[in-house]
Amino acid sequence: MLNKALREIPDELLINRRAFQGTPNQENDKIISFIREAILKCGLKDGMTISFHHHFRDGDYVVNMVVEEIAKLGIKDITICASSLGDAHDPIGKYIENGTITGIQTSGVRGKIGEAISTGKLKKTAIIRSHGGRVRAIEEGEVHIDVAFIGAPTSDPYGNARGIGGKSDCGVLSYSMVDAKYADKVVIITDCLVDYPNFPPSIQAVDVDYVVVVDEIGDPKKIVSNIIRLTSDPRELMMADYCTRIMVNSPFFKDGFSFQTGGGGAALAVNLLLRPYLEKAGIIMSFALGGITKPMCDLLDDGFVKCVVNAQAFDAGSIESIKNNPNHFEISTSQYANPRNNGALVNKLDFVILGALEVDVNFNVNVVTGSDGILRGAPGGHPDTASGSKCSIIVAPLVRSRIPTICDRVVTVTTPGEVVDVIVTDYGIAINPLRKDLIEALKDSKLPIYTIEELRDMAYEMCGKPEQLEFEDKVVAILESRDGSILDVIRKPKLYEI
Amino acid sequence: MLNKALREIPDELLINRRAFQGTPNQENDKIISFIREAILKCGLKDGMTISFHHHFRDGDYVVNMVVEEIAKLGIKDITICASSLGDAHDPIGKYIENGTITGIQTSGVRGKIGEAISTGKLKKTAIIRSHGGRVRAIEEGEVHIDVAFIGAPTSDPYGNARGIGGKSDCGVLSYSMVDAKYADKVVIITDCLVDYPNFPPSIQAVDVDYVVVVDEIGDPKKIVSNIIRLTSDPRELMMADYCTRIMVNSPFFKDGFSFQTGGGGAALAVNLLLRPYLEKAGIIMSFALGGITKPMCDLLDDGFVKCVVNAQAFDAGSIESIKNNPNHFEISTSQYANPRNNGALVNKLDFVILGALEVDVNFNVNVVTGSDGILRGAPGGHPDTASGSKCSIIVAPLVRSRIPTICDRVVTVTTPGEVVDVIVTDYGIAINPLRKDLIEALKDSKLPIYTIEELRDMAYEMCGKPEQLEFEDKVVAILESRDGSILDVIRKPKLYEI
Repeated sequence: MLNKALREIPDELLINRRAFQGTPNQENDKIISFIREAILKCGLKDGMTISFHHHFRDGDYVVNMVVEEIAKLGIKDITICASSLGDAHDPIGKYIENGTITGIQTSGVRGKIGEAISTGKLKKTAIIRSHGGRVRAIEEGEVHIDVAFIGAPTSDPYGNARGIGGKSDCGVLSYSMVDAKYADKVVIITDCLVDYPNFPPSIQAVDVDYVVVVDEIGDPKKIVSNIIRLTSDPRELMMADYCTRIMVNSPFFKDGFSFQTGGGGAALAVNLLLRPYLEKAGIIMSFALGGITKPMCDLLDDGFVKCVVNAQAFDAGSIESIKNNPNHFEISTSQYANPRNNGALVNKLDFVILGALEVDVNFNVNVVTGSDGILRGAPGGHPDTASGSKCSIIVAPLVRSRIPTICDRVVTVTTPGEVVDVIVTDYGIAINPLRKDLIEALKDSKLPIYTIEELRDMAYEMCGKPEQLEFEDKVVAILESRDGSILDVIRKPKLYEI
Repeated sequence: MLNKALREIPDELLINRRAFQGTPNQENDKIISFIREAILKCGLKDGMTISFHHHFRDGDYVVNMVVEEIAKLGIKDITICASSLGDAHDPIGKYIENGTITGIQTSGVRGKIGEAISTGKLKKTAIIRSHGGRVRAIEEGEVHIDVAFIGAPTSDPYGNARGIGGKSDCGVLSYSMVDAKYADKVVIITDCLVDYPNFPPSIQAVDVDYVVVVDEIGDPKKIVSNIIRLTSDPRELMMADYCTRIMVNSPFFKDGFSFQTGGGGAALAVNLLLRPYLEKAGIIMSFALGGITKPMCDLLDDGFVKCVVNAQAFDAGSIESIKNNPNHFEISTSQYANPRNNGALVNKLDFVILGALEVDVNFNVNVVTGSDGILRGAPGGHPDTASGSKCSIIVAPLVRSRIPTICDRVVTVTTPGEVVDVIVTDYGIAINPLRKDLIEALKDSKLPIYTIEELRDMAYEMCGKPEQLEFEDKVVAILESRDGSILDVIRKPKLYEI
């Protein structure tokens, strides 16, 4: 046959192939004015799954705006697959009660959403995943996202979106990169439209279907609310000193080591306390990973670490740093922590310093359920970094509000004890017996080393052994391990009244 | 049941899910010493497809090294899916003859490979694709790459690879990004191993299986052989002047316009000739796309364009620029030109200036077969940019070596006339009658405007009408349109003797 370019194409080639039919017109317009229109154009229907990121943390407006429009349209039975949810999303509680939202998959749950899940109001069993577990589940197809709604501080009209610029600066859009690649439809929601091309893009226009421009995507004050100040609490400084001495005396303290510290007071202080040891030993660290804070960026500026690799900006200082320091890099959460790709950055971590709500005598850590059994936390990158790093250090006071932190059995296992190496409390430290290398390395360190059972006994002596929480049989949430298997289940606490 | 963390998991949850079984050890070592070992570890077998990029152009050693090892192992019936192949790959000719290589999918074919295909020695029909067409075919699953072999100027031991650094600097690794994401196995081949993390990576470690360190991946002199000098040929300068005046008089010459120029003498000169017009009109261009050359980078340095977006570095100057200018960005070929994603950069091009071997009276362009009908060219980004841009300008001398460039019918259609807007020759220009807007805009421009038939007649008058080439029925290659349909077929020329 003759094709549209008037060339003779033999019929036998056209069994599995088409002949050229001409060049289609390109649709270049992605801008739409209302979230409602985006929802309709994406064909969102009952039973579908939508996704969000949590880079705007307590300042986020996007989740509530989108779900409100979905509810107004009468669409029901929606599952939210978010990188995390927090107090900003309390209004979602009522949409759980009215059946608009029937499934929640997230790292963090707090406030009204945590209560709604814990009290059994969510129709489907919630799924709690680590950051690495979420990106794995999406990349492996265990979760299919129908429509991703991605709040972006800046976007051009074609959907190249960035975490910086505009009035709702959040530094990076790492959590959303996988959503943009895997969701059927991708909607950018921005309050700052910029000229094409908005480069280098965190989210690429090639993945974006629509761009919605709204007045405000968040409250800038709450997006970077926690201008982190270094602790002056002597108890925290003491724990930071223990952490630092554990690091310095371990076999991994050598030129080119890598580290991650969370946002807790003691963890942050480690960034400062490390400096004299680095100077004395002439050591330059290879990379700082995270969850990035200003103290880590200061180490970069001062030449103590070669680069900072950022999957989430925790404070204003880290956002300034990624704008200005060419050795401060944005990564996807797949690069950060997916346990099933060919090698995430967490696998290359030497040290990570993390917090805990509870730790039990098997070194299991709980960072997700409170002492009342209610969901009010987030595994985040905790299991990912503990698992990937050569030395994971958990910092927590021995007792909090007369409740022992070290106990016989945590309410929920969010990080299995087999990947938890050292527990640091204000009354002493305990090394996981599996880590004979660390026990040997620290034996002459003059650190106050106890067994985990001794720490538990001290805590119980101070507060008494707490009564065991009671739960109903109903499982309200599954706590997934990084690889998708069931690490623990969360049941509805007994006698709980809202 | 009790899982490995000693938590009770209800059986009813374990119908579609597994219980936690413990944390596997991570395999962190990807370094291997020999290409042969990489081939074996990847499980390469008869009939599989392997891929390569052409960022090292005439200096590439990688394709030949890999195919030689495959041949030594006795593996047969391999298809090469390369972004392009060139004269550096003449040794592949003998592996086509001995059945090691039986399929070739590429943009460019030259030298011995072109001859082998044209003379019917390749067992399977070759497939010629544009750069955008290749990435589309991979992303849509029309081609499945079993093993991607990616030559990289630098890599860390975990496979974070970059186009810059080391001794075989090629600027970017854009063509390989899709291979890294879609191939079953990915092998980085480098001659410069650097410390982890090699950031920001062009190819991410998360996609890489093995890293092979060899002595040399290419000949640096030939990788950037064409230190492009601006033409002093008055015929080329005249054509450049025509191009520039077409641009300036078109409706698209306004603040924020975008452009791409190829590596030809006239096209390059346009970068210089544009300057006074930009200055006079107070116009700053938004982006330069390509195939990047130093004259485009000079426009960036001098503030005439806001950013340079690079899918291939054509010369040493462009490599220096991407290292040093923060507004010079590397992109994937999916971002560059995939016609089927949600919007490549070519769709946002205002102007593109391209070359041609032949143009016919239907404005069809041939850039792939010579006047003897033998394959010796590459569609490259030609059909992508012509199709995406608002104004595509083809520059070619009216006659080359006594062969008319403008003719009744091109040997092969590589870019369909419907997306070709203006033909510029040294004897005058022709505007595609479809582009009434351009005809109107240029009618008072004093440019020497003819019909395409008049240009053809001039050419035929000078050289005589060339005899029609004769072909056998056998189709040796399919010329795919950007969307995968058959734009044209390439047949075996009659009476061809090697």
